[in-house]
Amino acid sequence: MTDSIKYLLDEQHLPTNWYNISADLPTPLAPVLHPATCQPITTDDLAPIFPRAIIEQEMSLEREIEIPKPVRDVYRQWRPSPLYRARRLEKALDTPARIYYKYEGVSPSGSHKTNTAIAQAFYNQQEGVKRMTTETGAGQWGSSLAMAGALFGLEIVVFMVRVSFDHKPYRRALMETFGAQCIASPSSLTESGRAVLATNPNSSGSLGIAISEAVELAVQRDDTRYGLGSVLNHVLLHQTVIGLEAIEQMAMAQDYPDMIIACTGGGSNFAGLAFPFMRECFQRQLNTQFIAVEPSACPTLTKGAFAYDFGDTAHLTPLVKMYTLGSGFVPPGFHAGGLRYHGMAPQISHLAKLGFIQPRIYNQLECFAAGIQFAKAEGIVPAPEANHAVCAAIDEANKCRINGESKAILFNLSGHGHFDMQAYMDYQAGKLKDLEYDHNEVALALSGLPAIDAALRT
Amino acid sequence: MTDSIKYLLDEQHLPTNWYNISADLPTPLAPVLHPATCQPITTDDLAPIFPRAIIEQEMSLEREIEIPKPVRDVYRQWRPSPLYRARRLEKALDTPARIYYKYEGVSPSGSHKTNTAIAQAFYNQQEGVKRMTTETGAGQWGSSLAMAGALFGLEIVVFMVRVSFDHKPYRRALMETFGAQCIASPSSLTESGRAVLATNPNSSGSLGIAISEAVELAVQRDDTRYGLGSVLNHVLLHQTVIGLEAIEQMAMAQDYPDMIIACTGGGSNFAGLAFPFMRECFQRQLNTQFIAVEPSACPTLTKGAFAYDFGDTAHLTPLVKMYTLGSGFVPPGFHAGGLRYHGMAPQISHLAKLGFIQPRIYNQLECFAAGIQFAKAEGIVPAPEANHAVCAAIDEANKCRINGESKAILFNLSGHGHFDMQAYMDYQAGKLKDLEYDHNEVALALSGLPAIDAALRT
Repeated sequence: MTDSIKYLLDEQHLPTNWYNISADLPTPLAPVLHPATCQPITTDDLAPIFPRAIIEQEMSLEREIEIPKPVRDVYRQWRPSPLYRARRLEKALDTPARIYYKYEGVSPSGSHKTNTAIAQAFYNQQEGVKRMTTETGAGQWGSSLAMAGALFGLEIVVFMVRVSFDHKPYRRALMETFGAQCIASPSSLTESGRAVLATNPNSSGSLGIAISEAVELAVQRDDTRYGLGSVLNHVLLHQTVIGLEAIEQMAMAQDYPDMIIACTGGGSNFAGLAFPFMRECFQRQLNTQFIAVEPSACPTLTKGAFAYDFGDTAHLTPLVKMYTLGSGFVPPGFHAGGLRYHGMAPQISHLAKLGFIQPRIYNQLECFAAGIQFAKAEGIVPAPEANHAVCAAIDEANKCRINGESKAILFNLSGHGHFDMQAYMDYQAGKLKDLEYDHNEVALALSGLPAIDAALRT
Repeated sequence: MTDSIKYLLDEQHLPTNWYNISADLPTPLAPVLHPATCQPITTDDLAPIFPRAIIEQEMSLEREIEIPKPVRDVYRQWRPSPLYRARRLEKALDTPARIYYKYEGVSPSGSHKTNTAIAQAFYNQQEGVKRMTTETGAGQWGSSLAMAGALFGLEIVVFMVRVSFDHKPYRRALMETFGAQCIASPSSLTESGRAVLATNPNSSGSLGIAISEAVELAVQRDDTRYGLGSVLNHVLLHQTVIGLEAIEQMAMAQDYPDMIIACTGGGSNFAGLAFPFMRECFQRQLNTQFIAVEPSACPTLTKGAFAYDFGDTAHLTPLVKMYTLGSGFVPPGFHAGGLRYHGMAPQISHLAKLGFIQPRIYNQLECFAAGIQFAKAEGIVPAPEANHAVCAAIDEANKCRINGESKAILFNLSGHGHFDMQAYMDYQAGKLKDLEYDHNEVALALSGLPAIDAALRT
């Protein structure tokens, strides 16, 4: 083991292929179903929403999928991203644990979301699409797609969850600087938005609602397609560059992670880091632990049902089998907007159901405290979403101190917090409190699932 | 010439020494004078303000000064920083010019300021200092020193120029996240601040005023020293890692800059990039152009006098020979707080006087337009200060198109604009206008200089 703090791969080590875990799942994923016919969805069904290349990736069982050269050319601007050994944090915690983090905040828009934004913009442009619509929670995905749209000459329309739109005007300003249009969701521009506003004019919005609005707008015009920032197989696929690089970087460090930690909202940054390591577990029978960290205010894997559900609130999307708190559930407005989603990526849900992934919850105050401790030691202020991973990593490192164990902990620092300083100000001023989800609301949202199930059986 | 966009040096190429241009100046710098005795200042005179190691560097004529290992260890987190070929911007401009930029926004606090903050915090900690005071304009320097203080266990007190304090609450939040104290300047905590407030209770502040406050506080306590973010020789020295790396990176690109461009407020990011290239000009008789870009609202090199003046408003600092708009001048509150300084680094002033540096001015609207054009092409939103360099680079690239010349342009992208989105919002909403300095105010501020000169002659 060297005493380095940074493990940086040169450009020649930029992965040439993404890793598709669908090829290696111990049992196959449940099929995605058409909401009207309840039959497995076809390429043609999805064609009004996504370009063909994306649909192929979504359904592919190929293990390796080539990263197109124009995508790699943009990746090269910041990839391979650095992997750090957090020696100063280890010292501050006085832990025998070896803490590593993969830092995705070096991307131009400041998070891992850029990895899939570039790929999606490329495939859309290749197939003649002129405009893409999307949703965004914290704004990381929206600003990433806005940037990708600027590079590939696409018009971008972003529905931003109302609570984040209000909390984070500068994420919006960033999208607008890249030339995108940013609209607070629920909006009066779509039927889905108007329906929500009719019931609750003060709705704080949710990713589920914003997805409905973006899909609705996309299918209205032939030159428009929709892009999703997480959840779907192809999005998780694009993120695997993170873990593919990290495997090589851990080898540079002459070490191997005992546990892999990442936060999970829709699941893409977790999958990006974890899936390539999980392939090694499948191949080499390793005992690596995979810890998915959820906000206690939106504990999809921890408290949700594993069932067929809609990806959005207005039930415009196909039905997918996943952990879900119910597509009608609107999580409270805590300060990690990227984690406010009722569902979980089907691939992650499937692997969690099979016991390969351990979910864990933390509340927001302990996450901010962890983020500030990390910032003071490592000099980087994490995004509130990433603070969930930081919190779990610190927790595990503290356990190592107590138990006298020296484990190697690798977590994904999925983005920086430069656009989240209001949350840090509120936290430091004592204005934040821990938030719980409304149990009755979740029970109500979950109560719709048996009906879906029954419909599927007939 | 390859078709790369990124030139990244590995860690083994991190410079081991800073380059001290004082060793190579064609004529020596005018001595720094004690304001009371008008005699050249001594190490003892400066001891209440700076640690000994810093004072030695300030006065040193050694060409190479070793970078201490603990400083290099922190540098390694983000250095060597990338040098990019702006191929997408070139294409958007349809220019035959080859545009390169060195990107310092990859540092944890988002600008080049971290290079000297780490060094200063290290030397202070080495000599037993417990607390450092400083000023900050846009907040880039303050947050860099705040981060460095957290790493080296120093208490940090930052006087932030009022107009930036109001414009940029999130820079303040960043400093506070690192554990620093941030105070709006002019403040009622110091005599210097109270004197300004007595004359003008609504003063927008200036770097000159904030320096007075920070120095005043530093000399009051034995365990406290002061740190400056620009202007002085040792600060410029620490920034030369930028240019030293860039020389190697331009060699990787098999190219050599015809012109070097950077914005100048106090001068440190300009010097950091330019001085190592200037050494090559001295040694090899090259015709490289060095363009220092100033805001037209604070055109120190362009419109100032070359004379002895104070570095601060309250006249607590030594007298230095430099280009100055007069230490009493308060620049208007335009959106590039890091460039709102009445003076200019003595080394840069001296080299400009000798004809080695060409100053140039741009107003803020054209700088924001250039920054947005850059962001859309390159995916990175620059800080408003850095937009001045972007603006000049685009201007030169356009001239190349018109003249059919293929020049190599290298500029310093000194920091990102993540904490400047309010300025971008205001610009895009049409709320910003070009600002001019008050000619009468500058005339008044300059009118004090002959008296200083006369005092020095007696």
